[in-house]
Amino acid sequence: MKTNDPGRLFTQARNGDRASLARILSLIERGSREGEELSRLSFAASSNSFTVGITGAPGSGKSTLTSALVEQIRQGGEEVAVLAIDPSSPFSGGAILGDRVRMQDHALDPGVYIRSMATRGHLGGLSVAVPEASRALGAVGFTNVIIETVGVGQVEVEIAEEADTTVVVVNPGWGDAVQANKAGLMEIADIFVINKADRGGVRETRRDLEMMLDMTNLGSYRPPIIETIAQEKKGVKEVLAAMRRHHEFAITSGVAATRRKARLEKELNRILQAAIAKQVMDRLASDEFIKERAEMANGSIDPRSLARLVLGELGIVSPLWPS
Amino acid sequence: MKTNDPGRLFTQARNGDRASLARILSLIERGSREGEELSRLSFAASSNSFTVGITGAPGSGKSTLTSALVEQIRQGGEEVAVLAIDPSSPFSGGAILGDRVRMQDHALDPGVYIRSMATRGHLGGLSVAVPEASRALGAVGFTNVIIETVGVGQVEVEIAEEADTTVVVVNPGWGDAVQANKAGLMEIADIFVINKADRGGVRETRRDLEMMLDMTNLGSYRPPIIETIAQEKKGVKEVLAAMRRHHEFAITSGVAATRRKARLEKELNRILQAAIAKQVMDRLASDEFIKERAEMANGSIDPRSLARLVLGELGIVSPLWPS
Repeated sequence: MKTNDPGRLFTQARNGDRASLARILSLIERGSREGEELSRLSFAASSNSFTVGITGAPGSGKSTLTSALVEQIRQGGEEVAVLAIDPSSPFSGGAILGDRVRMQDHALDPGVYIRSMATRGHLGGLSVAVPEASRALGAVGFTNVIIETVGVGQVEVEIAEEADTTVVVVNPGWGDAVQANKAGLMEIADIFVINKADRGGVRETRRDLEMMLDMTNLGSYRPPIIETIAQEKKGVKEVLAAMRRHHEFAITSGVAATRRKARLEKELNRILQAAIAKQVMDRLASDEFIKERAEMANGSIDPRSLARLVLGELGIVSPLWPS
Repeated sequence: MKTNDPGRLFTQARNGDRASLARILSLIERGSREGEELSRLSFAASSNSFTVGITGAPGSGKSTLTSALVEQIRQGGEEVAVLAIDPSSPFSGGAILGDRVRMQDHALDPGVYIRSMATRGHLGGLSVAVPEASRALGAVGFTNVIIETVGVGQVEVEIAEEADTTVVVVNPGWGDAVQANKAGLMEIADIFVINKADRGGVRETRRDLEMMLDMTNLGSYRPPIIETIAQEKKGVKEVLAAMRRHHEFAITSGVAATRRKARLEKELNRILQAAIAKQVMDRLASDEFIKERAEMANGSIDPRSLARLVLGELGIVSPLWPS
């Protein structure tokens, strides 16, 4: 019953089998051969899924907002999948606490699928595994895919950035907007959410954000700033509406197509870099360069010169350093 | 007068010419051809320099401690160079504020050399440029090289870790030790300094550190915990003594040689990865793969399949993914 056959798993998952979907995501996460084939099948399948990245500092209320958004989307009758990204977590596949907390509200709803992802040996890491998983969710029929990051590390920001629409969550209070800016969140935001808007400092945070937006070179689209109290589900409808509006704008303006192209290029680059790095490291670790590495250790050849030598041996001889 | 000839610069710098030394460090920082040659010359030169990495959260007093250590070292009659590492700074070469502040105390002392480093186009980034610069300082005669990081980002921790001796600075107060642990500083510390020890909470911080050390798998060396008030130069002599003791231990135990080997291997890997990534990206950006990339953009080939294809074209055909 527990097959790893990509074609079969894919068909079963498209017919609504959640166990097959979970298996697909595990295989993709692991970066296995089957995962690669599943990634190919997902890419080739037609899909009209809309991906939303939600990011912001820990404690800003991303999970609560996500949960409220899921409810809102479900009220409109659409299905929704959530990928919770935690690069530092050794767990995945629904094992982490956050999932269980989030699941409580939606555990009995077959139209909601929630899944945690961490690095599990995928060669390109999460920044390749997540788009692959996201496409798989779209291919098996989820029209809405929410990618929620736990923190605002570099990988997480990259991942959130590559959704169709990116939501940045901040809290009221002086300095939060500045922190968001520092973390590189200003450039990637399509929508700002000031969550916990029942606290003091909303006006200041909004003013900071507006000022930073004023200083940014915006095109025809200016990210809206929406106040929410996710805990009480206030403002969530407005966030969903803003998401739809941005998506609409992105499609009609061509921004969606440009982004899609750019993110595929990035994905390609990441896979290539990871694959080549792995090959070089493997050869370096083998007996092939044992003599040269010993020479470096005893000080008779420096790392840069050895690097040139290794690259020469591997047949990579183009000029590699700036002149 | 302003030569870029590596051999000449190197000779001049060894004869004490600070302008040539500054030029050498700029060329290394930039990762230029001359920088590579200078790096080779430095590596080949005999040197008995001792490098100390000083890291810790911003505001913990690293700069003040460094300045006090410089003074202490000078009192012993030895020369000392300081590399201040700030990955996020667009400035370098002595331009940043920190330098000017630090310089005040030592500006007239020719036995002290202070220099900021930031990324300036070096292919391998700071984590390759810093060891190269550090070796250059050793090669031109500095017996003591202090590498001080501004923050505790990943790159900065990596850099501090690769010194002969790594000093981690924390402040008194509940939680600071825990933060240090989170930032990955516990594993890299050879010496802990509780700076600003005139504040409350020293005992708690010491207890936290001791507890974390107890939980760590230590060998025959246990990192000492030293209290300082760097501002008043209190405890600084003890820090210097602990640095010398650790260095002594590292040499006699073989730890120094093991570390040196490991860090050269890391450096080699970083250079190789950066060089290869650059080559692949350059070829990918050329017209060579224009058709394939267009096919990916219009959805007829997925990134992984295209990656395989590109690797095939580049003559890299070994199995690249885990099975």
